[in-house]
Amino acid sequence: MEEKAKLLVEALPYIQRFHGKTMVIKIGGEIIDHERLLKSMLKDVVLLSYVGMKPVLVHGGGKELSRELRKLGKPLKFIEGLRVTDEETLEVLHEQLAGKLNKQIVSIIAGVGGKAVGLTGLDGNLIQAKKLTLRRNQHGKEVEIDLGYVGEVEKVNATLINYLLNTGYIPVIAPIGVDAEGRPLNINSDPLAAELAKALKAKKLILVTDVPGVLRDVNNPASVISKLPISEVSGLIQNKIVKGGMIPKLEACIRAVQGGVEAAHIVSGHVPHVLLLELLTDKGVGTMITKDA
Amino acid sequence: MEEKAKLLVEALPYIQRFHGKTMVIKIGGEIIDHERLLKSMLKDVVLLSYVGMKPVLVHGGGKELSRELRKLGKPLKFIEGLRVTDEETLEVLHEQLAGKLNKQIVSIIAGVGGKAVGLTGLDGNLIQAKKLTLRRNQHGKEVEIDLGYVGEVEKVNATLINYLLNTGYIPVIAPIGVDAEGRPLNINSDPLAAELAKALKAKKLILVTDVPGVLRDVNNPASVISKLPISEVSGLIQNKIVKGGMIPKLEACIRAVQGGVEAAHIVSGHVPHVLLLELLTDKGVGTMITKDA
Amino acid sequence: MEEKAKLLVEALPYIQRFHGKTMVIKIGGEIIDHERLLKSMLKDVVLLSYVGMKPVLVHGGGKELSRELRKLGKPLKFIEGLRVTDEETLEVLHEQLAGKLNKQIVSIIAGVGGKAVGLTGLDGNLIQAKKLTLRRNQHGKEVEIDLGYVGEVEKVNATLINYLLNTGYIPVIAPIGVDAEGRPLNINSDPLAAELAKALKAKKLILVTDVPGVLRDVNNPASVISKLPISEVSGLIQNKIVKGGMIPKLEACIRAVQGGVEAAHIVSGHVPHVLLLELLTDKGVGTMITKDA
Amino acid sequence: MEEKAKLLVEALPYIQRFHGKTMVIKIGGEIIDHERLLKSMLKDVVLLSYVGMKPVLVHGGGKELSRELRKLGKPLKFIEGLRVTDEETLEVLHEQLAGKLNKQIVSIIAGVGGKAVGLTGLDGNLIQAKKLTLRRNQHGKEVEIDLGYVGEVEKVNATLINYLLNTGYIPVIAPIGVDAEGRPLNINSDPLAAELAKALKAKKLILVTDVPGVLRDVNNPASVISKLPISEVSGLIQNKIVKGGMIPKLEACIRAVQGGVEAAHIVSGHVPHVLLLELLTDKGVGTMITKDA
Amino acid sequence: MEEKAKLLVEALPYIQRFHGKTMVIKIGGEIIDHERLLKSMLKDVVLLSYVGMKPVLVHGGGKELSRELRKLGKPLKFIEGLRVTDEETLEVLHEQLAGKLNKQIVSIIAGVGGKAVGLTGLDGNLIQAKKLTLRRNQHGKEVEIDLGYVGEVEKVNATLINYLLNTGYIPVIAPIGVDAEGRPLNINSDPLAAELAKALKAKKLILVTDVPGVLRDVNNPASVISKLPISEVSGLIQNKIVKGGMIPKLEACIRAVQGGVEAAHIVSGHVPHVLLLELLTDKGVGTMITKDA
Amino acid sequence: MEEKAKLLVEALPYIQRFHGKTMVIKIGGEIIDHERLLKSMLKDVVLLSYVGMKPVLVHGGGKELSRELRKLGKPLKFIEGLRVTDEETLEVLHEQLAGKLNKQIVSIIAGVGGKAVGLTGLDGNLIQAKKLTLRRNQHGKEVEIDLGYVGEVEKVNATLINYLLNTGYIPVIAPIGVDAEGRPLNINSDPLAAELAKALKAKKLILVTDVPGVLRDVNNPASVISKLPISEVSGLIQNKIVKGGMIPKLEACIRAVQGGVEAAHIVSGHVPHVLLLELLTDKGVGTMITKDA
Repeated sequence: MEEKAKLLVEALPYIQRFHGKTMVIKIGGEIIDHERLLKSMLKDVVLLSYVGMKPVLVHGGGKELSRELRKLGKPLKFIEGLRVTDEETLEVLHEQLAGKLNKQIVSIIAGVGGKAVGLTGLDGNLIQAKKLTLRRNQHGKEVEIDLGYVGEVEKVNATLINYLLNTGYIPVIAPIGVDAEGRPLNINSDPLAAELAKALKAKKLILVTDVPGVLRDVNNPASVISKLPISEVSGLIQNKIVKGGMIPKLEACIRAVQGGVEAAHIVSGHVPHVLLLELLTDKGVGTMITKDA
Repeated sequence: MEEKAKLLVEALPYIQRFHGKTMVIKIGGEIIDHERLLKSMLKDVVLLSYVGMKPVLVHGGGKELSRELRKLGKPLKFIEGLRVTDEETLEVLHEQLAGKLNKQIVSIIAGVGGKAVGLTGLDGNLIQAKKLTLRRNQHGKEVEIDLGYVGEVEKVNATLINYLLNTGYIPVIAPIGVDAEGRPLNINSDPLAAELAKALKAKKLILVTDVPGVLRDVNNPASVISKLPISEVSGLIQNKIVKGGMIPKLEACIRAVQGGVEAAHIVSGHVPHVLLLELLTDKGVGTMITKDA
Repeated sequence: MEEKAKLLVEALPYIQRFHGKTMVIKIGGEIIDHERLLKSMLKDVVLLSYVGMKPVLVHGGGKELSRELRKLGKPLKFIEGLRVTDEETLEVLHEQLAGKLNKQIVSIIAGVGGKAVGLTGLDGNLIQAKKLTLRRNQHGKEVEIDLGYVGEVEKVNATLINYLLNTGYIPVIAPIGVDAEGRPLNINSDPLAAELAKALKAKKLILVTDVPGVLRDVNNPASVISKLPISEVSGLIQNKIVKGGMIPKLEACIRAVQGGVEAAHIVSGHVPHVLLLELLTDKGVGTMITKDA
Repeated sequence: MEEKAKLLVEALPYIQRFHGKTMVIKIGGEIIDHERLLKSMLKDVVLLSYVGMKPVLVHGGGKELSRELRKLGKPLKFIEGLRVTDEETLEVLHEQLAGKLNKQIVSIIAGVGGKAVGLTGLDGNLIQAKKLTLRRNQHGKEVEIDLGYVGEVEKVNATLINYLLNTGYIPVIAPIGVDAEGRPLNINSDPLAAELAKALKAKKLILVTDVPGVLRDVNNPASVISKLPISEVSGLIQNKIVKGGMIPKLEACIRAVQGGVEAAHIVSGHVPHVLLLELLTDKGVGTMITKDA
Repeated sequence: MEEKAKLLVEALPYIQRFHGKTMVIKIGGEIIDHERLLKSMLKDVVLLSYVGMKPVLVHGGGKELSRELRKLGKPLKFIEGLRVTDEETLEVLHEQLAGKLNKQIVSIIAGVGGKAVGLTGLDGNLIQAKKLTLRRNQHGKEVEIDLGYVGEVEKVNATLINYLLNTGYIPVIAPIGVDAEGRPLNINSDPLAAELAKALKAKKLILVTDVPGVLRDVNNPASVISKLPISEVSGLIQNKIVKGGMIPKLEACIRAVQGGVEAAHIVSGHVPHVLLLELLTDKGVGTMITKDA
Repeated sequence: MEEKAKLLVEALPYIQRFHGKTMVIKIGGEIIDHERLLKSMLKDVVLLSYVGMKPVLVHGGGKELSRELRKLGKPLKFIEGLRVTDEETLEVLHEQLAGKLNKQIVSIIAGVGGKAVGLTGLDGNLIQAKKLTLRRNQHGKEVEIDLGYVGEVEKVNATLINYLLNTGYIPVIAPIGVDAEGRPLNINSDPLAAELAKALKAKKLILVTDVPGVLRDVNNPASVISKLPISEVSGLIQNKIVKGGMIPKLEACIRAVQGGVEAAHIVSGHVPHVLLLELLTDKGVGTMITKDA
């Protein structure tokens, strides 16, 4: 019995440290797909909110989207990891992300006694974005690659989110921005989470993925790099230690840390209670990206 | 030139009368389907918000939903006008209403310079509901008719909506409620609008439909009843003057008026600028349901 | 019918642009004298206030004052356009401006459903002023010309006016300042309006006069200069294109624009609904003085 | 030296008792006319405001008004002590009361370091009034006596005055009301002060007059009745002990006390520092009208 | 590792239930005396405050006081369990309770990262009290027994404490009241805690003692009564099951529960982490006194 | 009678000047010991608070402490005027200062109708301090002199005190600080008062002592220096005009003045009503230390 209480007491210093601090948590599509994991994680988010932190959730949803597009017999098209988004894709994106996933998350949170408000970047002009155009050199000429309705964040309107946080709501944000004419744009959720963390002056950005963190040896899950100053990232990329999908995640982390966020974390959603371990115990899990000492 | 200004001046007494007053406007599925009409109407809503009123939008979406279900090869099933809602239907409902229609409305408003926030009843536990069960007498026995995930409003949490109204946002609400366990329920949007109007102490409830109002002769669109005290409604129903889908609309109006809303209006969304005519000029259009004198 | 509504919709972008913005409007004595014009203009001011702008009125009153002084058999005396003000004149000034005109304006506004509060610079030490002394070279010697109780603005206390604006009142200000000993001073209403516009961080200063604007040819009312950057004003004065009473008006406009006011306007109060035309339609009337591009 | 400090200490219990309490002080025309007395009294009012009380001034101005009307060659006409007020009289009333006296009081207060705001009942629709019609029996028939633009108070809007009091301003109110159409009405300042005291939940109503209080023997200034429960007033009137102008003053006091004001005082403005004596020492001066024990 | 997190998750429903709720916790002298226990308990109190509860501490201090009085060679005198308090005793009371114990508690809380403010009932006139006089029948005559400077609570001023709670401070209150003349009075800390709980509309009153709760058999610590409706208490007293010092504790609990506090608890401070067990787990310890079902 | 009122009027300019201004008043142990003087002084402090100033009291208590230590047979030990403070001394310090003197002051203030809150630097981590170590050269070597639990101020948390001042409470502060581990430290009350004055942006710091001020001739009480710019202080010390206990007092005054406090005063508590004389009349008493002209 007493053991139980002792464990609560051990959490005290962490609760004190992060009390009233905003935490932007991005939950990747792989975890969202995994119902049991998602429920457990959202319960933990509600707990964090009750012990005084201010969690903001950003969700992806690529898998759900791809599945739905496939159902409709629509070929998936990506350029440099970015989904080419035509009007029909955008519509399905709204249906699946804003309509289904976002509300599913809100519903689970309500079910465990939390209060969440689901939003997209359209709501209250929350995430102002502009169309993203890739400029690449092909055969010695610069060409513009059109990705369709894909955007990058220009400005985050923090007022509404701060109101929600201060009155005890957990904002749940789908990765859709709005351009100056009120048109929606598909936004990658990793850089979106980074921009939110900056705009909200968050203490931490946590990217919940399906890998254990940044690995020294991509074949060895035990080779997680615990602490990574931002200056060391470029070396890891040049030496091909870090590759593929991890690169934009690290870029998002760097953007956040350079923008004033104290630390960014890349953790695995498969570790049970990973958020509690990371935020309420001294057991660091995954990789923490920080300013250079 | 001067004519133009004179017209603005004529609007003054109406602006004064409704300044700072909350107006719950329910836009029916037929109008939402009609893109040009919808855009024009939302522009008018933004104007109302700028001249000091506090509009709250509730949208239906039955048509969109039915169309989508048909696409999926799913038979539509209604009992007494209520859509029987199984889990799959609920999912499509989320996709189409919360995901597509709701965000489409928010997007159009953003495009004309307004600020809207799209919500469902799940967000912030806004619309607390419970499962609706019909009890009917069949062959001398009371039987319960299960409609699946269909609910009725138990309580509206007005705080979040009032915050949004007071900071200049236009709330746009999809007809989905949440039960005590956090599960979503399909809610009919007419009674939902009535309950919102009551909870927000709205001045008016306006149901925008595709008919000109309550008709004395259903075949004669010119036979609109301009003013209808609530005590006269039951006579109209008993004498079969009012039938079918108009009955639940009138019931919603009565519920609102009995709950303290000053007047409820049934108007046609096909009349250009119907909201401006109703609220900013002395030209009454459609049917106004009021307390008995 | 629909036409009417369309015109309202056309006003929307202007309403959006100026929503919540402070507008300092100086109404010259000639207009105040013209009862029908004044009533119509004040009705328009109330409309502006209801659609979300924050109008502040400054009134002159020289004509009324001169008429009253003549009745009392008192010779009128002006030096360089400034009224020499002895104690008796000051008393009549109070009676006519603070007592009669100011309250007449407040009364008309109340009569059309607005809420105004009439103030002089004495109230709440609103307009702190100091005695104005002209120093002129006469016959090679500098002489001081005593104008009596005439002052220039030193400091505007914006708090009280901002409170009134934020709670929906229209401040109506008579051109009387107060010196450090609490004594009233006669202040010219054009520079006073400019100083108020600066202190209140107003969006616009509008001088309502009895001429159509700044004219290229003083004999041709159609020769109004629509847009006038402040750098071009001195040329107009040196070339004697602008003369007489228009010079101090232009100086007030320059003072406001240099102090951060976006634009100053010189318009004719004889144009019906001139304020609505200027602020709610795209029809510019009169002369707009702006920063140099 | 020490004596001085001791006297300050003696004021402490009175300061404590009335700290934060609203005091409505009506200054009669005889005192206003007396420049030295007025200045001294206003200095005392500023002192009261600095030691934490919330004084509200109401001024009369009949004498000034009559003098001015006589200058204009206009006959004065009174019915039952009420001034018959035609349009011309109303205009002079505005000039003299709102224009001259009110601003003179504001100016004197500014001169001794206080902050006053001069208002009439028109400002902010402060004093809503309706036309007063006397109904009298003449030769067995009821006749209506028209007094012209004379009104009685219907409603006091306390919000603006409370704002001014809470931010340290001293409101100075001229006895002019406004009817539902925005037209000014001449209001008797004694009942006006009583209604203000009620609406502001004042602790005290103080009528500063030119008599020492209510006298048992009108020829003996030493026969002041110190304390007068409201139930004894009617006896004094019936027995003709109290006559003439004192009767409406007593009626105003009764109205205030019955409306919740703790005590009403009738004091002489000729007693130096009468307000300080009444409010900051235990020396009661004049007559105090209170609830019955 | 995961075990740890699971335990935190189990605390969630309790944290949710008591979030934002005020808890008045009285720590008896025996526990205060026991340094290690006290430190552990205060750390738990800080934890409760960080997870969103609002703890208010009331401490006794009889033992410390008696020890000090004995040191001074002063005989201890009690009547019916109440300490007879002469002036010298009162002085020592201040020294030991307000000076030593209170500040020691504040200091320990600061040492574990909490923010406490130590107060007596004198501070801000927090606990208004009046002298307590016992009236007893002796030999057929009523006699008054003078206890000296001993008081009972008349009124608790909740404003200051609520400010402290709302800004995250933990109020620590020594059992000293103040009478109308500003004189301190010795107050028994059990009824004081009950009155505080009522005035602060606390959710719970917790009396931390050195016994395990209310026992059915005073010699058997295992015979704790878990749940005790207030109606059953008198029976326990009449049947001599409850005796001595437990009686006033139960009376305090009844007073609190009848005054609107949801439950009162009598628990043992010797149970490690008793507050956490009581408030954050489903393990009830000690006796819970509640309203009758 | 009138004389009395006149004296009140004379206080007006001083009340105006210091209205809403914070005054830090340190009352030395000699005055605290003198019951009649103390009571009179606290009554004056309450008066100052009622006329709109914001007094903050800091008290010493060395005499009481020494007396108590002597009673316990404990030798007193001072180094350079600083009391060497072992654990036992610290405990007695708490008992005497926080327990007895502080609450006695609060009690007297309550008795004359004021509202005080007694605090030490522990409360709300009000006065963050660090251990003070003297470094002195002895026989050519730097040695550290350990004073035990003696500290110097590092940071004052002004929020709680400002809340108390703004809601009308008089903070009464005992000279005890708290280090980063939550341990109390004995702080000299003169520099503490100076740091409080700086942190609270006080208008004045007033040290109430038992000497008439800074004397030119220490044997001649009439040789008080009225005004002393801080630049002249070092000369006075070098020329041995100022010696002993006056030096640290002057250093505290300089620290305050250099930190933005307008003036620091050294006055005698034996002058009756010295605070009123200093703050409410033009009779300067004692020495005023100011910035250099």
